Amino acid sequence: MTYFLSRRVLAPTLVLGASALLTFTPVRGQQTPVVAGSVPEFGTMWTFDAPPLDYWQSRYGFRPDQAWLDHLRLSAVRLPGCSASFVSPDGLIMTNHHCSRSCIAQVSPPETNYLRTGFTAATADDELKCEGMYADQLVSIEDVTSRIRGQITADTPAEQVAQRDAAIESVRSACEQASGMRCQVVPLYNGGMYSLYTYRRFDDLRLVMAPELETAYFGGDSDNFTYPRYDVDVSFLRAYENGQPVHPADYLAWSEAGAKDGETVFVVGNPGSTGRLLTLAQMVYLRDVDYPARLASYDARMKILQKLSAESPENARRYETTILGISNSQKATQGYLSGLLDPKIMTRKAHFEQDFRSRIDADPTLKAKYGGTWDAIADAQLELSTFATQARYYALNGSTLLGYAIDIVRVARQAALPEGERLPGFQGNGLDRMRRQILRDRPLDEELERMQLASWLASAQKDLGPDDALVKALLGGRTPEAAAEEIVQTSHLKDVAERKQLVEGGEDIDTCGDPLIVAVRDLEPTANSYVKRAAQLNDVISANVAKLGEAIYAAYGKALPPDATFTLRISDGVVKGFPMNGTVAPYKTTFYGLYARSADFDDASPFQLTERWKLAESKVDMKTPMNFVSTADIIGGNSGSPVVNEAGEVVGLVFDGNIEMLPNRFIFTDEVSRCVSVHSMAIMEALRKVYDAGRIADEVEGRNR
Amino acid sequence: MTYFLSRRVLAPTLVLGASALLTFTPVRGQQTPVVAGSVPEFGTMWTFDAPPLDYWQSRYGFRPDQAWLDHLRLSAVRLPGCSASFVSPDGLIMTNHHCSRSCIAQVSPPETNYLRTGFTAATADDELKCEGMYADQLVSIEDVTSRIRGQITADTPAEQVAQRDAAIESVRSACEQASGMRCQVVPLYNGGMYSLYTYRRFDDLRLVMAPELETAYFGGDSDNFTYPRYDVDVSFLRAYENGQPVHPADYLAWSEAGAKDGETVFVVGNPGSTGRLLTLAQMVYLRDVDYPARLASYDARMKILQKLSAESPENARRYETTILGISNSQKATQGYLSGLLDPKIMTRKAHFEQDFRSRIDADPTLKAKYGGTWDAIADAQLELSTFATQARYYALNGSTLLGYAIDIVRVARQAALPEGERLPGFQGNGLDRMRRQILRDRPLDEELERMQLASWLASAQKDLGPDDALVKALLGGRTPEAAAEEIVQTSHLKDVAERKQLVEGGEDIDTCGDPLIVAVRDLEPTANSYVKRAAQLNDVISANVAKLGEAIYAAYGKALPPDATFTLRISDGVVKGFPMNGTVAPYKTTFYGLYARSADFDDASPFQLTERWKLAESKVDMKTPMNFVSTADIIGGNSGSPVVNEAGEVVGLVFDGNIEMLPNRFIFTDEVSRCVSVHSMAIMEALRKVYDAGRIADEVEGRNR
Repeated sequence: MTYFLSRRVLAPTLVLGASALLTFTPVRGQQTPVVAGSVPEFGTMWTFDAPPLDYWQSRYGFRPDQAWLDHLRLSAVRLPGCSASFVSPDGLIMTNHHCSRSCIAQVSPPETNYLRTGFTAATADDELKCEGMYADQLVSIEDVTSRIRGQITADTPAEQVAQRDAAIESVRSACEQASGMRCQVVPLYNGGMYSLYTYRRFDDLRLVMAPELETAYFGGDSDNFTYPRYDVDVSFLRAYENGQPVHPADYLAWSEAGAKDGETVFVVGNPGSTGRLLTLAQMVYLRDVDYPARLASYDARMKILQKLSAESPENARRYETTILGISNSQKATQGYLSGLLDPKIMTRKAHFEQDFRSRIDADPTLKAKYGGTWDAIADAQLELSTFATQARYYALNGSTLLGYAIDIVRVARQAALPEGERLPGFQGNGLDRMRRQILRDRPLDEELERMQLASWLASAQKDLGPDDALVKALLGGRTPEAAAEEIVQTSHLKDVAERKQLVEGGEDIDTCGDPLIVAVRDLEPTANSYVKRAAQLNDVISANVAKLGEAIYAAYGKALPPDATFTLRISDGVVKGFPMNGTVAPYKTTFYGLYARSADFDDASPFQLTERWKLAESKVDMKTPMNFVSTADIIGGNSGSPVVNEAGEVVGLVFDGNIEMLPNRFIFTDEVSRCVSVHSMAIMEALRKVYDAGRIADEVEGRNR
Repeated sequence: MTYFLSRRVLAPTLVLGASALLTFTPVRGQQTPVVAGSVPEFGTMWTFDAPPLDYWQSRYGFRPDQAWLDHLRLSAVRLPGCSASFVSPDGLIMTNHHCSRSCIAQVSPPETNYLRTGFTAATADDELKCEGMYADQLVSIEDVTSRIRGQITADTPAEQVAQRDAAIESVRSACEQASGMRCQVVPLYNGGMYSLYTYRRFDDLRLVMAPELETAYFGGDSDNFTYPRYDVDVSFLRAYENGQPVHPADYLAWSEAGAKDGETVFVVGNPGSTGRLLTLAQMVYLRDVDYPARLASYDARMKILQKLSAESPENARRYETTILGISNSQKATQGYLSGLLDPKIMTRKAHFEQDFRSRIDADPTLKAKYGGTWDAIADAQLELSTFATQARYYALNGSTLLGYAIDIVRVARQAALPEGERLPGFQGNGLDRMRRQILRDRPLDEELERMQLASWLASAQKDLGPDDALVKALLGGRTPEAAAEEIVQTSHLKDVAERKQLVEGGEDIDTCGDPLIVAVRDLEPTANSYVKRAAQLNDVISANVAKLGEAIYAAYGKALPPDATFTLRISDGVVKGFPMNGTVAPYKTTFYGLYARSADFDDASPFQLTERWKLAESKVDMKTPMNFVSTADIIGGNSGSPVVNEAGEVVGLVFDGNIEMLPNRFIFTDEVSRCVSVHSMAIMEALRKVYDAGRIADEVEGRNR
């Protein structure tokens, strides 16, 4: 493979593709319509301290006051990996079923699995504590940019990174000491700005209601990331303090009608990570180096697991979850990659970058400070790409045994070095963590190990060539299959006692005769050189993307929302169907559709209905809206976010995006990408008519007040 | 725009695109798996005199006998533009609703519109005659290749074409005289082979049953060409002779279970036209010249009609059908183009062509005879492309008045020439036909005329440049809008009396002062030269594609089915869902889905249910399979084809393809492309429970026998 990553060929050849290039129009001097236009390409994940009031006013004719914003912020809570909200004065919290999944499994008594049966607490006494789960409510935001940046005085990127980390930690711990609350320093715009977020934590959460997994995740992995959809992906928890339900001052009211076609809606939640400030060079690296390598690796693993699964029903069961996980990652990565391969998206990105650079270049001071950042990043990415293939294989992580070998050799060698000279990961507690990892006693799946190693060796041989030291050392003239067979048969690293000998017992790795240790100890210096070189380059990139974050203010002011950071944001959008597959996808689905999709597949998994839903068919209103789509800007971490209308009432519950949304990771577009939510009416209908949970429905709708 | 059509750059640069090129592997010497492989890329539209018995045996383990084939052939009939089949011993014919649409409208009494209400003949006496409709049953096939080819002795392409046409006509009329039946000479493989098809014609067809248009075409233009789908696109006719129902010896039995997942099925019908034998050069021409021009023209017309429609409800009504028609053409053309833009498809085509050419080149005799055909075609396409833009505008068909002007000038000039020197279209009866066309008295839509002319002039100015004679003559220094305004205001060609004067009344076009006549009479010689040049080149292409048709035997024998010719074929396939939109499309839909899609759109058009279906909800079995998909190879003309199982029983009724099927026009693939059919069980359920048509259901199921 050849990578064309040099910044000299970037602009004309690589980024846009030949055909898009023909229509490329420089926007120099022209104001890029970042916010005034209909679709802000940086998206709409606004922070609560910079709500785009003018933009909302012009786009929706809606200008909320501070009380409206404060109320939404305080009604929202963050769960581990998810979002949620208070929906009653008695501390009831609504989130997705998939955000409570581990709690639901955990609170199931031995004889029942609530994931299979669903769960409804008939009374408050029946609510079951989720151990280890907590909810954080964002009580204040403070700009601490100058406090952090004042501490960064060093010249080298590596030192700057260390100073920054120390400053962040010091601000955070000072805040926790002073407030007695949870504090977090959030680097926004790649560190162009730092905000101090203070949270009130609720750490006694109890399970109140959850439907069956089959209902919450109807359509399973097939329908995941897609729409039309038919999932009741909801669960209810309750926050307790001192054994009593919490009575939050702020909680969301429930909308009677729920989401309507064309309605303006807001999503309040914690989007995890986006890459909208990435430079073209970074995107090209992902497109040409990173994602293809990931996809190749998923593909290789998938082939092995599918082959093994076909061998026996036991194997099929054993690998099912792993296969689903990989298939999920494939789907997501393929979706991200498709965005990067889309000339329209890359052209928009190129336009923006051109405009951004020309604004910086137009001011001599800004140019001196920031003008070099894009090229510095592009050069570092380019250099990374020159040894990306080598670095990937020299990570020596192609199989479990190979991983043990390199870790064991490194633990021995790195321990002998002074702290400052060690590799990242072997500093501080790193060495001990590594030792524990090596000594975890897990049985080796020998068949899987053999196939993985053989597949990895075959790839290495193909990608590195037959004369590479790694290939020679591990193959030793054998075929990948024969080498894998022999290594798995003869290596003692399968045995935890043997690994203990090497890590703790004093057996010298330099005299150890284990075939893997012998091969790997000669490769380790080269492997380390790749790790170090990559770390240096990544420090350069990291320091320069932080500069870009600063530059973006200089060029555009505060009009652009920062990349997602798994902190609270408010995104706006419109309830709206979209063109799909030659026709139109409706703005909402209905219960009819649930029964339809199940019947379409003859009630086979993952489209089978639970008994409860089969019995409920005659009771529910089949026209009840089930799921709906909106143009709100979301990403992983937004799961469980409430969707509210202009009155601040709940009209839905975010649980996914459609497949067309995946490229939004890099540039926000809303032609076909959609946020997928459970409709509020589906939740009420299900609570009352399917789950015998009128108590909870009444509480949510305020009928008990 | 620059076209890279030269055959020198074709292979490396144009056809495949840069990235596909990298993976291009010559297949020289290697046998292309045309039939033995899993997907024959020439598709499966087999003629009944060359059924692929070995292929069916190896693929499905099914080898029908001659009686099975004869029975299917004789049970099938061809309608104008459609396919159909006998489904009862009393001459009942099943086809699509959209194939009987004009009859349904025609037989509606003044007070009722059966398209809106649906129609069920309660008794035989209530069956209503469709004037002008007929059904042709294929009774025999004879190879007449040598009879036709023996008559082609001339040297020039134009003379060869004339001799061929004369030979075809002579064979056909001799057949009709001898048999007293309808005869048709079918040129297969672009004229590489000629078959004489003899038909028995049934010309008294009566309407027996038709659902409402809204049910037959549920989802309307939006869902057209797509799947999942929910259409009862069926109608029943009956063939009469001498006032009595016909009793055909062959008719199809009805399957009780209907189409099942994974089942092998056969489609018997008349696919209209495919381009699978097109050379790469022809495909490139379509891709780079023809389709882009068509799409630009659709786009221009669409913009005007949408603008006019937005002006008033009357306009919206007036242009609705035209807009739907254009939108349909856009969808189809875009789909075809997407296939040509798909590097995978073009690579496969390139592989095939390379293999084909290398087989011809390997035999000196074949090489001498056919080796030059690809280059001859490519050169002609290339030359066509050099003046395609000019030829398009010099057709002078940008508006109704402009069309009158060029036709009037041509009628005067061509009438003065000897027959042999006239343009195509002005020979024989052509002149009179043209005169009648000019003198049809239709009111001119002046607003539309003005906008169309302005839009066409603006495009001409842009594409031909300001110095082109046409642009100068028609614009005369004005803007396109001003020119169009003035021309429409001042031209007398609006007036049929004035046109009559010019065509018949002796007004001399050379002294006529009408601004359009003045402009066009000077442009006419140039316009004619383009017409002639294009006709010559198309004769060259036509003669060479016929040679290619001969060559394909020499290279592959009779293993490849010929391109579609709107004659009877049998296609094979499997009932099977497909990957779609990130998830899977089911092999079938159900009645649940009909109610779901209607509810999803709040029962709005084109997703509204008829009253009859709303009332039937409690009566029908909601799990009844409604539509289903299979990998059978179909295209326009197959509408109304029966889908049968290995027992020859009806399991469904073809009515559409999915959007992914459109690129199959050029290469057949079955990964995602699907034939969409009404499920036989949906037809029975609808007849019995919705349309009060138990009489017909009993007849079809043989319950009355």
